[in-house]
Amino acid sequence: MAYSLGLDYGTNSVRCLIVNTADGTEVATAIYEYETGEQGIILDRSDHNLARQNPADYLKGIEVTVKQSLEQAQQNDPEFAADRVIGIGVDTTGSTPLPVDDRGRPLCFHQEFRDNPNAHAWLWKDHTGYAEAAEITELAQKIHPEYLAKCGGTYSSEWFFSKVLHCLRSDPAVFAAAHTWVEHSDWLPAVLTGTEAPAKLRRDRCAAGHKAMFNDAWGGYPEADFLGRLDPALGRLRATLGDQTWSIDTTAGRLTGEWAGKLGLTAGIPVAMGAFDAHLGAVGAGIRQGRLVKIIGTSTCDMVVAPGDNDLPDIPGICGIVAGSILPGFFGLEAGQSAVGDIFNWFVNTLQPGGPQAGSHEALTNGAARLAPGQSGLLGLDWNNGNRTILVDQRLTGLLLGQTLHTRPEEIYRALIEATAFGALTIINRFEEYGVKIDEVINCGGIAEKNPLLMQIYADVLGRRMKLSRSGQTCALGAAIAGAVAAGRAAGGHDSVGEAQDAMCGTKETSYQPVGEHQKVYQSLYALYMDLHDAFGRANQTAHLGQVMKKLLEIKSQANR
Amino acid sequence: MAYSLGLDYGTNSVRCLIVNTADGTEVATAIYEYETGEQGIILDRSDHNLARQNPADYLKGIEVTVKQSLEQAQQNDPEFAADRVIGIGVDTTGSTPLPVDDRGRPLCFHQEFRDNPNAHAWLWKDHTGYAEAAEITELAQKIHPEYLAKCGGTYSSEWFFSKVLHCLRSDPAVFAAAHTWVEHSDWLPAVLTGTEAPAKLRRDRCAAGHKAMFNDAWGGYPEADFLGRLDPALGRLRATLGDQTWSIDTTAGRLTGEWAGKLGLTAGIPVAMGAFDAHLGAVGAGIRQGRLVKIIGTSTCDMVVAPGDNDLPDIPGICGIVAGSILPGFFGLEAGQSAVGDIFNWFVNTLQPGGPQAGSHEALTNGAARLAPGQSGLLGLDWNNGNRTILVDQRLTGLLLGQTLHTRPEEIYRALIEATAFGALTIINRFEEYGVKIDEVINCGGIAEKNPLLMQIYADVLGRRMKLSRSGQTCALGAAIAGAVAAGRAAGGHDSVGEAQDAMCGTKETSYQPVGEHQKVYQSLYALYMDLHDAFGRANQTAHLGQVMKKLLEIKSQANR
Repeated sequence: MAYSLGLDYGTNSVRCLIVNTADGTEVATAIYEYETGEQGIILDRSDHNLARQNPADYLKGIEVTVKQSLEQAQQNDPEFAADRVIGIGVDTTGSTPLPVDDRGRPLCFHQEFRDNPNAHAWLWKDHTGYAEAAEITELAQKIHPEYLAKCGGTYSSEWFFSKVLHCLRSDPAVFAAAHTWVEHSDWLPAVLTGTEAPAKLRRDRCAAGHKAMFNDAWGGYPEADFLGRLDPALGRLRATLGDQTWSIDTTAGRLTGEWAGKLGLTAGIPVAMGAFDAHLGAVGAGIRQGRLVKIIGTSTCDMVVAPGDNDLPDIPGICGIVAGSILPGFFGLEAGQSAVGDIFNWFVNTLQPGGPQAGSHEALTNGAARLAPGQSGLLGLDWNNGNRTILVDQRLTGLLLGQTLHTRPEEIYRALIEATAFGALTIINRFEEYGVKIDEVINCGGIAEKNPLLMQIYADVLGRRMKLSRSGQTCALGAAIAGAVAAGRAAGGHDSVGEAQDAMCGTKETSYQPVGEHQKVYQSLYALYMDLHDAFGRANQTAHLGQVMKKLLEIKSQANR
Repeated sequence: MAYSLGLDYGTNSVRCLIVNTADGTEVATAIYEYETGEQGIILDRSDHNLARQNPADYLKGIEVTVKQSLEQAQQNDPEFAADRVIGIGVDTTGSTPLPVDDRGRPLCFHQEFRDNPNAHAWLWKDHTGYAEAAEITELAQKIHPEYLAKCGGTYSSEWFFSKVLHCLRSDPAVFAAAHTWVEHSDWLPAVLTGTEAPAKLRRDRCAAGHKAMFNDAWGGYPEADFLGRLDPALGRLRATLGDQTWSIDTTAGRLTGEWAGKLGLTAGIPVAMGAFDAHLGAVGAGIRQGRLVKIIGTSTCDMVVAPGDNDLPDIPGICGIVAGSILPGFFGLEAGQSAVGDIFNWFVNTLQPGGPQAGSHEALTNGAARLAPGQSGLLGLDWNNGNRTILVDQRLTGLLLGQTLHTRPEEIYRALIEATAFGALTIINRFEEYGVKIDEVINCGGIAEKNPLLMQIYADVLGRRMKLSRSGQTCALGAAIAGAVAAGRAAGGHDSVGEAQDAMCGTKETSYQPVGEHQKVYQSLYALYMDLHDAFGRANQTAHLGQVMKKLLEIKSQANR
């Protein structure tokens, strides 16, 4: 028996998962909630764009969760022993870069920067660099449009260089004291393997490709001249980033004696290269060609792979197209919706409709389940938090159409679910328009598991069978798969990610089939959704909306027959 | 001292008001709730379009309310005596026609029709004749477009001929038994004056002009040939309608001895010609040239007069343009919004937002009052119950735009108020485009009196001072004014409606002035409202909506500075 250990760093906590490498059985899991700030996030009341984290929480989280998991595994599985853990994998949020000194230590570990949020990790959802993001986009449009073509056409404030440049502009002392900036997903494996010193550090393909414009086609990271035009100091930083990146089937190094001792693991076991949570989540859900993995939470990530030997065209509006970012040898494609669960949460928690009894997610879902497609006459746009794919426009807002004096909360709730399904279909259609075929969808995340109505609506709208990932913690499982591959078959692991997935991944028995009748109604509604989508989502667009309300009523009256 | 008595027949009850003719002091009022059916309305569970009333309730209501009012007046005003009541006026809902026999008695007073809803009064909101309304519209478009030009371009299911034709088609026995059909507003004064026999009956200009296509330009009611094409029997009914109609400054006759005895009034005092509630409400609010009277309730009526000697053009989308229907010598123009208070009631009672404490009209108004114009980034269309003016399309639905994950109930509540204000402005603009100038607005109705926020928003959006009618019961006051004019100055009344209004009407001290800063923001928002209005409200319309969301955000960010 051999086991692999996955560390999954989320927004508020880190999870450790121990998995049997032969069949994917999950033998133990433990969670540590970060201690610093509010729910693990350092905030600033005067700037709601700011979101930072303390890397000390990341380190403490390893000790707490690994020790707990090892104890639990021993209780759960008589075969288990700590020395049967043959490899470690890591996933993190991203882009979450932190400034480090010339030994790879976070600046905030220095006394002088201890209380400075800028010397901490800049969490993915930190948007302080929004002006810098616009500046980067504008410059790239002018002189290097190819940089943008692989990341949806717009460089985001959530991404690496927006954050680094904003630090340079707003806190030059921190920028000057930093030797370089390292993604959380690179720093963590490096710490475990003693390779955090910049000269030894390996940077992962996933973070670099999706968030820092890394591409072999132009020699890796953006050229120093480009960065130098944004600021000479940023140009000089380019040299510290290196020219090479590594995918998850390679290792960051081997577990140091010090960490092995602290954790009760065997020194020298391999630690895989890290990657972002959604990417390793896709691996854990069994991603492969033709199979979209949908991670549905407050927002969604839609992960797809395409053969790496083809010359994949740029796909407008897709956040990232990066060779080897999910599966080695395949392009990794990342899309997503800026809000899904968050829209339902907004309706229930902020709008609080339906009075005290009738306004819970459960009650509204039950009410919505009694409605037929099209019956309410409502149609919405799922843009309450902007549109990530395919419009790449965070400023877009929500829309609801078709209200009468009789419109009920559960009707709106269903229309919001349907709107997110239409948004999901728009992403799939975009992939297929550019030759990336999607045959089936594997869904992960709490909403997918807990809301059969939503899954049925998705099956009906997407016109595809909806499957559910067997594991409820696919990100940690994906990390453990990377650990198993790092160890290799000879050590009891696997020699490739595909082989590991075949052995360790699966789907639940329950799945959702499209219902022909529903599909027909949703095809009509989707045509109207696209009218609204194009009219409101595209600048200077001309659309015929004069018939939208009436057509919606025709669908309503058909559905009410 | 002289007094006039107004009878105001609403949807669920009748009100009697006794007023001092010298200064409009209201000395007594009493209400009688109709007894038949649900809240005075005969319904049919299998047909939600059906709404009828029992004319026996109308008669009983006179006795109950007049007697109570007389007693109350004696207590309230030492000068008062029943024989100082010099005239009576009547207003009713409409179009509310009832089938009568050859003596003018309602068919439902006959034993054989006692339980037949079709033999009762067909209440204004009965929509059973929707198919006949479409048929009438279609035929008029073909052969008499001028019939439609004076009533907004579409003949409504709420109106006289739709109802009569539907009865002919669906219950030929009732139709055959009826000698003619009489509006409630004509039948009531006729009963009080013993002139209900068809040969003596006078029909009022208001009901005939606004709901039965009466116009002197084509010799009164629609020609027999037109009606005959719809059905020969309807063509034959034309002869019973007569060729003349009377406005409120003329009398239906004099109070019969029998009614005088029953009520304790003086036999022979004049009873003015009746009119619809909104029209006499406008009179009671002091309508005159340049002054729009806005009756704000669940829906609104917007009443305007224009000089009768001018050749007033047809105004597309205005429900009615009828010479003498409000003030003698002026064109009466009627517009309105299909839902105003009903939209706020829908939000509070059906959607029930904000949890148990925060979801009342009062709490939402307080929250909304703390917001600046444009601050929420929300924009709505006020079409939850269709659009009466200027689009004349009952099938249109509501729309809300600009929702984010932070949008709060009070922001939506304010956006709904603003949407109704934009709808109100669209009506005023339409009047002015066709040369009917609106300088000031007098508001009536509970919402106008109780919601200062709404009034301020209306002042800011309409760019005009908002005044409030002094009387809280302007319809009954208008009826009493008609009674005072019927009596004439010599008897202690007045010789003209204008003279009576000058003496008996007034406005409250509180009024609402537009705030320049708010007006500027609302002008920008209104431009976006009109983009939505034209794009969604007009068939085959092409509109540029690509910038609507973004412009709304610009307004929002300005407002949040």
